[in-house]
Amino acid sequence: MSDYEELDDPKSQPRYTGIPTFMRTAFTDNLSKVDIGLVGVPWDGGTTNRPGARHGPREVRNQSSLMRTHNQSTGVAPYELCNIFDVGDAWVKKPFEISGALDEIQEFFEILHKANVKPISIGGDHSITLPILRAIAKDKPLGIIQFDAHCDTGDDYLGSPLHHGATFRRATEEGLIDPKRTVQIGIRGGTVLPDLWRFSRESGMRIVTMDELYETGADAIIEEARQIVGTEPTYISFDVDGLDVVFAPGTGTPEVGGFSSYEALRMLRGLGGLNIVGGDVVEIAPPFDPSGVTAITGAALMFEILCLVAESHANEK
Amino acid sequence: MSDYEELDDPKSQPRYTGIPTFMRTAFTDNLSKVDIGLVGVPWDGGTTNRPGARHGPREVRNQSSLMRTHNQSTGVAPYELCNIFDVGDAWVKKPFEISGALDEIQEFFEILHKANVKPISIGGDHSITLPILRAIAKDKPLGIIQFDAHCDTGDDYLGSPLHHGATFRRATEEGLIDPKRTVQIGIRGGTVLPDLWRFSRESGMRIVTMDELYETGADAIIEEARQIVGTEPTYISFDVDGLDVVFAPGTGTPEVGGFSSYEALRMLRGLGGLNIVGGDVVEIAPPFDPSGVTAITGAALMFEILCLVAESHANEK
Amino acid sequence: MSDYEELDDPKSQPRYTGIPTFMRTAFTDNLSKVDIGLVGVPWDGGTTNRPGARHGPREVRNQSSLMRTHNQSTGVAPYELCNIFDVGDAWVKKPFEISGALDEIQEFFEILHKANVKPISIGGDHSITLPILRAIAKDKPLGIIQFDAHCDTGDDYLGSPLHHGATFRRATEEGLIDPKRTVQIGIRGGTVLPDLWRFSRESGMRIVTMDELYETGADAIIEEARQIVGTEPTYISFDVDGLDVVFAPGTGTPEVGGFSSYEALRMLRGLGGLNIVGGDVVEIAPPFDPSGVTAITGAALMFEILCLVAESHANEK
Amino acid sequence: MSDYEELDDPKSQPRYTGIPTFMRTAFTDNLSKVDIGLVGVPWDGGTTNRPGARHGPREVRNQSSLMRTHNQSTGVAPYELCNIFDVGDAWVKKPFEISGALDEIQEFFEILHKANVKPISIGGDHSITLPILRAIAKDKPLGIIQFDAHCDTGDDYLGSPLHHGATFRRATEEGLIDPKRTVQIGIRGGTVLPDLWRFSRESGMRIVTMDELYETGADAIIEEARQIVGTEPTYISFDVDGLDVVFAPGTGTPEVGGFSSYEALRMLRGLGGLNIVGGDVVEIAPPFDPSGVTAITGAALMFEILCLVAESHANEK
Amino acid sequence: MSDYEELDDPKSQPRYTGIPTFMRTAFTDNLSKVDIGLVGVPWDGGTTNRPGARHGPREVRNQSSLMRTHNQSTGVAPYELCNIFDVGDAWVKKPFEISGALDEIQEFFEILHKANVKPISIGGDHSITLPILRAIAKDKPLGIIQFDAHCDTGDDYLGSPLHHGATFRRATEEGLIDPKRTVQIGIRGGTVLPDLWRFSRESGMRIVTMDELYETGADAIIEEARQIVGTEPTYISFDVDGLDVVFAPGTGTPEVGGFSSYEALRMLRGLGGLNIVGGDVVEIAPPFDPSGVTAITGAALMFEILCLVAESHANEK
Amino acid sequence: MSDYEELDDPKSQPRYTGIPTFMRTAFTDNLSKVDIGLVGVPWDGGTTNRPGARHGPREVRNQSSLMRTHNQSTGVAPYELCNIFDVGDAWVKKPFEISGALDEIQEFFEILHKANVKPISIGGDHSITLPILRAIAKDKPLGIIQFDAHCDTGDDYLGSPLHHGATFRRATEEGLIDPKRTVQIGIRGGTVLPDLWRFSRESGMRIVTMDELYETGADAIIEEARQIVGTEPTYISFDVDGLDVVFAPGTGTPEVGGFSSYEALRMLRGLGGLNIVGGDVVEIAPPFDPSGVTAITGAALMFEILCLVAESHANEK
Repeated sequence: MSDYEELDDPKSQPRYTGIPTFMRTAFTDNLSKVDIGLVGVPWDGGTTNRPGARHGPREVRNQSSLMRTHNQSTGVAPYELCNIFDVGDAWVKKPFEISGALDEIQEFFEILHKANVKPISIGGDHSITLPILRAIAKDKPLGIIQFDAHCDTGDDYLGSPLHHGATFRRATEEGLIDPKRTVQIGIRGGTVLPDLWRFSRESGMRIVTMDELYETGADAIIEEARQIVGTEPTYISFDVDGLDVVFAPGTGTPEVGGFSSYEALRMLRGLGGLNIVGGDVVEIAPPFDPSGVTAITGAALMFEILCLVAESHANEK
Repeated sequence: MSDYEELDDPKSQPRYTGIPTFMRTAFTDNLSKVDIGLVGVPWDGGTTNRPGARHGPREVRNQSSLMRTHNQSTGVAPYELCNIFDVGDAWVKKPFEISGALDEIQEFFEILHKANVKPISIGGDHSITLPILRAIAKDKPLGIIQFDAHCDTGDDYLGSPLHHGATFRRATEEGLIDPKRTVQIGIRGGTVLPDLWRFSRESGMRIVTMDELYETGADAIIEEARQIVGTEPTYISFDVDGLDVVFAPGTGTPEVGGFSSYEALRMLRGLGGLNIVGGDVVEIAPPFDPSGVTAITGAALMFEILCLVAESHANEK
Repeated sequence: MSDYEELDDPKSQPRYTGIPTFMRTAFTDNLSKVDIGLVGVPWDGGTTNRPGARHGPREVRNQSSLMRTHNQSTGVAPYELCNIFDVGDAWVKKPFEISGALDEIQEFFEILHKANVKPISIGGDHSITLPILRAIAKDKPLGIIQFDAHCDTGDDYLGSPLHHGATFRRATEEGLIDPKRTVQIGIRGGTVLPDLWRFSRESGMRIVTMDELYETGADAIIEEARQIVGTEPTYISFDVDGLDVVFAPGTGTPEVGGFSSYEALRMLRGLGGLNIVGGDVVEIAPPFDPSGVTAITGAALMFEILCLVAESHANEK
Repeated sequence: MSDYEELDDPKSQPRYTGIPTFMRTAFTDNLSKVDIGLVGVPWDGGTTNRPGARHGPREVRNQSSLMRTHNQSTGVAPYELCNIFDVGDAWVKKPFEISGALDEIQEFFEILHKANVKPISIGGDHSITLPILRAIAKDKPLGIIQFDAHCDTGDDYLGSPLHHGATFRRATEEGLIDPKRTVQIGIRGGTVLPDLWRFSRESGMRIVTMDELYETGADAIIEEARQIVGTEPTYISFDVDGLDVVFAPGTGTPEVGGFSSYEALRMLRGLGGLNIVGGDVVEIAPPFDPSGVTAITGAALMFEILCLVAESHANEK
Repeated sequence: MSDYEELDDPKSQPRYTGIPTFMRTAFTDNLSKVDIGLVGVPWDGGTTNRPGARHGPREVRNQSSLMRTHNQSTGVAPYELCNIFDVGDAWVKKPFEISGALDEIQEFFEILHKANVKPISIGGDHSITLPILRAIAKDKPLGIIQFDAHCDTGDDYLGSPLHHGATFRRATEEGLIDPKRTVQIGIRGGTVLPDLWRFSRESGMRIVTMDELYETGADAIIEEARQIVGTEPTYISFDVDGLDVVFAPGTGTPEVGGFSSYEALRMLRGLGGLNIVGGDVVEIAPPFDPSGVTAITGAALMFEILCLVAESHANEK
Repeated sequence: MSDYEELDDPKSQPRYTGIPTFMRTAFTDNLSKVDIGLVGVPWDGGTTNRPGARHGPREVRNQSSLMRTHNQSTGVAPYELCNIFDVGDAWVKKPFEISGALDEIQEFFEILHKANVKPISIGGDHSITLPILRAIAKDKPLGIIQFDAHCDTGDDYLGSPLHHGATFRRATEEGLIDPKRTVQIGIRGGTVLPDLWRFSRESGMRIVTMDELYETGADAIIEEARQIVGTEPTYISFDVDGLDVVFAPGTGTPEVGGFSSYEALRMLRGLGGLNIVGGDVVEIAPPFDPSGVTAITGAALMFEILCLVAESHANEK
């Protein structure tokens, strides 16, 4: 029992007030009442250049107070469709070794999965998607819609099979994702090999380069992505470096010449009606984000994914 | 009489020199020779989240030294068309109570209005547009072309009918603007109600969402806006949060997914030949603008509005 | 019941993880188990120049994860002495009018006071100390040890008797503080009147200017302060502008030429054994603090005050 | 002989390591083995407003570690086509007088030119292009593809015929460039004269304003540029203020409303197959670039020009 | 005649309002009523490393709104002692050549000098002190109290006898200052020669290193300085790099290990009663000052010098 | 052979020019001619909170161009005493596991050690000191003079015996340092245990807290340190978090209330004449250092250590 006026709805307070949870949802560690769990994964041990994504969850929690309850563009009102809570952080007790660290992250998501909680996560670097998929895609490979400058289907790098640039290769190899139901949008930048993303190509993933996105347009690309992933369960993984560096300066491997924030929001909104079982927004590195735009944009992307998962969850029932 | 070489034309000095007035125009408090007055309104007491727009006029004055005299795109040369001065700030003596503060601002603009000075203002938050309209639209409601992420036709909030998100509702209720001659461009973002902008809709304002702007294109939207406001007197109110957050990070309520600076300039230029009697650029909050781009962009928007008002003023004669 | 490993001790997690409460204490709104409540007061409506202190509580919560459990200098271990919780924010529902806003803040602290919770607060601007004192000093005036560049015993300003520069005059007039048991340390800067702090002088407050602090040394000043406040209940109010501007750039009215962070910590530590019933750290304005040092320093000051109040609380028993 | 494992390929090291040369190429001052020389020109004495471009080469060297070896969009792998080295800085011994300073820069490039090294330079302000052209275009005027907000064909300014806004007028007058084979893309912003770029117009340069670029599209403009410069030797000069100010805030004369980074990359890529003999990226001013995006983008532009020159060099043989 | 309430006393307005003149004094170009002129000298063409001091006057004007009217430490109220105005900028028409540029600056100060206006200037780099002295010390050499990390008595550098590190050598050679009445306080940092400041030593200047200042204390050093300069006319030149780099990060040649802001203010205050005929604060480079502390501190230093000159001026009469 | 004027002495170039090596020394990988090697160790995998020190070497290289050749305070001219080169980075090929990473770093320093090169390193986090000591202290334990806020003699943390807070415990256990000849200066801040630094105490290290440093003074502490380490070989390890957070905001575990930069320089200078065989400056994290002061200060600390090692090296001969 509370001694003073309970804060039943933090979302009604002025936005600069209160302890910052994701989108000012209530925090809970009682998963029985949770349909969708908003999770922080403060891990950047898979980074190959600029670290700092471990600070991503905090800063996105802070800036996500700007988010509201109804999606003006699609009409979706996620909080009316399901029970949404901030369920805290999948933090790592032994961060000095990557393989065990990813196992720890996996354990957290296994608990959520067992409790039928659909996770939407803020990274952390892109290596976190592997343990998430290990937790939620054990039974059947998921389709993937990935927004990213890089396919992240590289091989071992700097002596490790695990790092933020190999996630989707490892996930494919482990049978966690269906490469034929995988779309990678925004690919660009230089490469260190003539055919760096051969694994993507050969495994059947659909690579959409920035050039193709520019030439074809976001709507057509999304229409194709819908066809590719179909009605089966699909996961959305949004690496903010898919955005142009000015829309996401606060990231570990920035790439010049990406899509805009509006295009990102539009593409996400275009995925309405699909069977979206979870998602993540990764590679937000606040120390490189002096104006805060990357975290603000990350919060907006999280809200769009939340609307998709909420709608999908409601459709299930 | 000056003892040393008079600075007759501050605009010919190097840009980093001198006391910064708006666009390096001369300052005057003798309104008899002024056709268009450039005004600062350092008031952010109507802000509901991040304050700081009170510092907007100073920083725009500083950055507006980058502006020049001729509009290369439209050919308009405002300083050849009318007498333009920086007429100082509509500052508030009693800032701790919003209603009286807005009255003070109104008094300043009433003096300008009586002197037949057309005002172009830098805010300050969007609540300043209400007292400006109270001063200049007493006789007859004005048409409004508003660039903004939010319609600002909300109702009471945080216990007050006056705040930066209710300006155009209050102005309509007070008969200061004609909702049928009001266009709101760039609307987007989440809302806290399913139909937050019902007042806009029901009163007959034309809401142009970012989705519609993206799909239809800036030129067509502006053509429609021209039809809506027609040849009657019209006021332009530009809230910089209409721009995407990366084009205007220094603002109080940033919204991801807006239009670009080029689109903004192009839309303003497309309003040439209308009967534009004044305008404002609001919600520039320098403390959130580490690179200064928001103030620089605000200065460029102010120059475009200046060209429109100057051209309109010249056409009157 | 929690479904996954409960986070019993957030302070044992890596510091960059988790939802940021003050010093990684647990949050509670059940005051029955609380001895000391850590409170945010996100209010800057009493500011006369640069706003932004409303964002102080959030940023101090974030940076206070750097704090630990034992005071290496004094040996005090506050968490072993009493029950300490983050009790949330004293946020304001109607922020557009200062008098009512301060009443709202007062109500929050009255609830704490009735529950025998000693408050340690992070502002917000210095006007918040008045409603705190109204709540906790009703029965008997408190002694005050104030660290500040300004005495804050000014009179009406900008049309209001309530603002961040008049707090201790109003508190004296209302019988909330005993001016003879009030010490003001760090006073400096220009003034707008020859004898701006006459009220302090005439009411019997002890003003310690920076010049005197430099000449006499921190230890002697603190020894005198101990004599002045004696063994009666005393409140500590720390305005970060008492620090030199380089130690606290993120503040509303910065003053050049103040004391250092080490001197601040040392002076606070010198107050051990006094009867300290509460305290606050105010005027932290994160938008003006690009490197975060002001919030980090504010967290360290809060920890010192916590140690004093905890020790005092333990001595009571 | 090296005592420890030689760093044969700095590009294979993690990107945050090592002494930063341009794109992690080896440094040499033995020009006999160099086909393309990457050069810094740390000179901003031709700047008329915000200085700082002298720090450009260092910061681009630092950020260019993000660049890789293969152009994913065009397929060009420059390091497989020719020998590319960082050849250091064309620094100025007597920077206090502009005419002699430009002569010093010219001497540096003459040495490169005699050694058959094709230069790709990072400025510095745009005045550096004149001495580069004086060194490499002595025999025959070059075609120019210039990306810029300003034509830089102004006349004397602030008492000097040499400054960063007169480069291409002086180069034309000196017979270094062929105005009929000169294209200027991205021109916009206010002007101080009704026809500021008359020299461009009258000498036969093709001015592509931002309005035209927006209306016609980047691909068509580039197709026209290809026709204009033809198969004769051509030089690319990229002033980053051609980009919108948010894509290049760190510059000396920012202009609102420019093209995007993607459009810039696409236009450069569209120049493949032409006879490109060198190029520069100028006006990167790191002190105005808190997030580093301008230098990152500058590095990406440099890589595109490198691919063009490498391809052209390979075709020669 | 003014049409609306004239702003007779800008210093009574809220500090964030109005067009920023130095310390919110009125601007005038009628020197007949001026005793002390506050001048900006936006020139950084004498800089040998990081430029940007040309932006110093603007940013100090902006931040100097924090200054007030009475010196709480010394009791001096300058505005009651003499007529003080912002007299604008000594800007340079031909900035591309240093010798002529300094002549232009000299002309500005000669006009002031002829009008019996005592100048207090904000630079600009330290080369500006030479033309100021040329204007005001023609008749008789002045004593100098210089606060600085460097003696600035170097010889030709980078091909020029004029630069910001040779000012006081050139001034001595020209008979403008009396080296025996010159004190240089705060000297430190590495040197490029074993005895870099030989000129200072041999000409009889008193060099006070940081080591000596630390060991002897500010009060004793100032007492000695008073003896050295005596009662004859003396000029104060304050290079902000005398301060430690954390107190003045925004400067061209920062030096670690300097004195603090408090020590600076105290030393200046200790000069009361001397015959101070002018002064300057130089080398404030805002692009390197993200938190603004350098400009804020520069404004406070200017106010102290103003108090000294005002007091001295009043004593004259 | 060079084709153009060789850059024989980069230190004579203007400071903003050239490829940045440490202090503008020449780079070499031929160790036969090197007495003192300046090394970068871009590793921050031992960090427990804010990462980013991997970027330290680059930024210190950049800012160290501000350093000169002669120590004005002590008279030492290191470049006249021995051969000093930038020998590049001890970079890590397999950064995803800490134990192997430290082994890689050790290998680099073993090569230097075998070549009789005395290393002065820029970290990286404080875990780098362990492999350096493993390489250079194999034969006989070294004395240590450590400047730090933390003793770094903690035990396993976050599952690892290796991390930046356990370096000097592990080094003692491995017989690399003599705890009786170890002095730790600047210790402060909260702790998570009542006696966190018990290992330091019990092994005989001399802990000098900030309180003791403040009370006793830097000169007396250094005199004692000289006695403790005596004439035997000694290593200096400078963690920049020993400085107050405002002097070193760019660090991984900032602590409020430390010593100043001047005190740091003075303490280092006080170690002249000791037998100093190497040193490091660690924990500089540029992403948290918006004004660059931490890197500038780190460069100055490196220069002082260089003077000590050079003098010591010269004395050997």
